[in-house]
Amino acid sequence: MQQYKVAVVGACGAVGQEMIKTLEQRGFPVSELVPLDVAAKVGTFVAYKGGQVVVREAKKGAFVGVDFALFSAGSDASIELAPAAAAEGAVVIDNSAAWRMDPSVPLVVPEVNPQALDAHKGIIANPNCSTIQMLVAAKPIHDAFKIKRIVVSTYQAVSGTGAPAIEELKKQAAAFVKGEKIESEVYPRQILFNALPHIDLFLDNGYTKEEMKMVNETHKILDPDIAVCPTAVRVPVFRGHSESINIETERPFTLEAVRALLEKAPGIKLMDDASKQVYPTALDADGRDETFVGRLRLDPTVPHGLNMWVVSDNLRKGAALNAVQIAETLVARGYKRRS
Amino acid sequence: MQQYKVAVVGACGAVGQEMIKTLEQRGFPVSELVPLDVAAKVGTFVAYKGGQVVVREAKKGAFVGVDFALFSAGSDASIELAPAAAAEGAVVIDNSAAWRMDPSVPLVVPEVNPQALDAHKGIIANPNCSTIQMLVAAKPIHDAFKIKRIVVSTYQAVSGTGAPAIEELKKQAAAFVKGEKIESEVYPRQILFNALPHIDLFLDNGYTKEEMKMVNETHKILDPDIAVCPTAVRVPVFRGHSESINIETERPFTLEAVRALLEKAPGIKLMDDASKQVYPTALDADGRDETFVGRLRLDPTVPHGLNMWVVSDNLRKGAALNAVQIAETLVARGYKRRS
Repeated sequence: MQQYKVAVVGACGAVGQEMIKTLEQRGFPVSELVPLDVAAKVGTFVAYKGGQVVVREAKKGAFVGVDFALFSAGSDASIELAPAAAAEGAVVIDNSAAWRMDPSVPLVVPEVNPQALDAHKGIIANPNCSTIQMLVAAKPIHDAFKIKRIVVSTYQAVSGTGAPAIEELKKQAAAFVKGEKIESEVYPRQILFNALPHIDLFLDNGYTKEEMKMVNETHKILDPDIAVCPTAVRVPVFRGHSESINIETERPFTLEAVRALLEKAPGIKLMDDASKQVYPTALDADGRDETFVGRLRLDPTVPHGLNMWVVSDNLRKGAALNAVQIAETLVARGYKRRS
Repeated sequence: MQQYKVAVVGACGAVGQEMIKTLEQRGFPVSELVPLDVAAKVGTFVAYKGGQVVVREAKKGAFVGVDFALFSAGSDASIELAPAAAAEGAVVIDNSAAWRMDPSVPLVVPEVNPQALDAHKGIIANPNCSTIQMLVAAKPIHDAFKIKRIVVSTYQAVSGTGAPAIEELKKQAAAFVKGEKIESEVYPRQILFNALPHIDLFLDNGYTKEEMKMVNETHKILDPDIAVCPTAVRVPVFRGHSESINIETERPFTLEAVRALLEKAPGIKLMDDASKQVYPTALDADGRDETFVGRLRLDPTVPHGLNMWVVSDNLRKGAALNAVQIAETLVARGYKRRS
C-alpha cells in the first residue's frame, strides 16, 4: 500500500494536535509525519503512534517531498506559506479562512462535494466548522427536497477559538469555584456562565465574519440559491458545536422520509427519539467523528418547514477530521504527486 | 397613599425570593407582606426591608384580607390554591403555567397588553419567561410593521428551573475544578459545559411544552396571526435568558426605524453598536429590569426580515418583576378590593 509524507502546520495547536491524532486513529498511510510550527515551538515534541516526533519550523523549504500539508496555523501563516508548500509539490489542505472563497481553490466537505477536489491546483480549503456540520446534515435533504432557506442559530464551543480559549474557560471556572475575580483576555466578555453573540469580527452589514462564512461557504459548497440567515453564538462548552436549524424546502416532505434519508446518509448519526429523551448534545459529540442530528420536527409556519438540532465535534469533523477525509478522498480519487 | 397586603406563595423559592426583593426595590406600597410556603418551610424567615418575616403555610384561609397574592410555587399549588385565594378576595397573579391558557384568565405583559387586566375574575397569569422578553421586544415592531412569522432559538438560564438547578450547576462546576465525577439529578444530562435542547416535557408534535408556550402565549398576548417557530435550549448560565430571534414583517421597514421604535419603547434598553462590540449578554441583564436588545440587522433572505438578540433576567422581567408590574398596573388602572 502506498504511503504518504504528511506535514501538519500548527502542529502544537488545538486543531493541529487533533489532526495528528486523527491521522493515527484512522490509519492514514503515513510514511513520515512532519510536525511544523513557529520558531518558538521548534525542538518540542508531538505524540504520534506511541512515540515522539520533533517539531520543525514551518517555513519555505520545509515541504519538499511532502505529499499532504495540513495547515491549521491561522490565516496569516496560510497566506504566507500555502503557495510555497504547493510550489514545493505538496497538496495543501488548509483549515484557515484564507483561501476558502478563492475561485481557484476547492472548498470541500467530502460527504457533500468531493468532485470539487479534482480541479485543485495545489491548495484545497477546509470549510468553517459551523458550515461543515450544517451542510453534512442539509445535503441529503437538499438533494431530495431542494432547500430554499435556512435560519440557523449556533451554540459554539470555545475550542473553536483555540487552546488559549480552552484555558480561559478552565481558569474562569476555577476562579468562580474559589470565589476569585473572573478575568477575560481571549474573549471581550466573560464566557463562563454566559453566551456571547459575537464570533470573529463584525462587518458593515451587522453580521460577523463567522456568520457570513456560513452564508458564503454554503453557496460555494452546496448551492448558491440557498438563502442562509445565521446567528453565531459562543457558549461555555469546551468541545462540540450545536446548531438550531430551521429549513424551508421547495418540495413537500414527510418527517419519515427525512429520517430515512438521514439514517443512510454518510457521516450522520441520528439521535432522535423525543419519547425517550434521545437527542444529541455537545458532550455526546466530544471526540466522535459523526455529525449528530436530533429534534427533527415539522415547522408548520411555512408550507414545507423542518427544524433540527445538529451537533458535531468542532475539532474533529469541524476541522481535523474533515481535513484528513479530504486527503483520504484525494487518495481514493487517484492522487498522484504533483512534482 | 393606599397600601396593600401582599402574599407571596412559594416565598422560599428562587422566584418567590425575587418577588419579595422586587416589591421592596420598586417601593410597592405594601401594608403587610405575607410569605407563604409548604409546611416544611413554616417558621423559617424571609428577608424584607432590613427585617425578617416569618413564613406561614400556604393553604386555604391564608388569603383573607390579602389584596395581591403572587404565586410561584409550581402548577399543582396554583391549581389547588389560586381559586381559594381568589374566593377569599385576593387577586392572584400566578407565575405557573396552570392558568395561562384558560380563556377566563388574562395573560399579561404590562408593556404589551395591559388592557387585558380589566376583565380579570380574580386570577391573572404571568406568562412564561421566554415569551415575556420576546414579546416586549416584538410589540413595537408588530405595531408598526405587523409581524408575520418569528423563528426563535433560546439560550436559557438554569435559574428558570429553580433553586435546585442553580445548585446543580454550581456543584458540577466545583466537581469539574476538583477533577471529581460530575453528577446530574435535576437535568437528564450534564448542563455544565453543555447545551440541552430540552426544556419541559416533550409533546407528540416533537416540540417541548416550553416551546409550545412561546407559540400559544404569543397568540393569546399579542396576536393569534403571528406564526412562531421555537427551539428552546438550556445553557450553563445562572441568570438571564438570551434569544436569537428572526422576524418577518408584512410591511417594509428600515433598521433606523426599528432602532427608533425600540429606543422609546417601554421596558427596552438597546445595546446595539457592533462597531464598538456593544451587544447584550446574560451577565449584563443579571438583576436588571430591562429587556435588552442588540445585534439588530436586516435579514436579506426574505422581503422584510430582521434579526435581533434579546436578553433579559428571567427571574426579574421573566417572572418576579412582570408579576409585580401586573400588580402596579392593576393599582394604576383603579384596583378595588374584590370583597
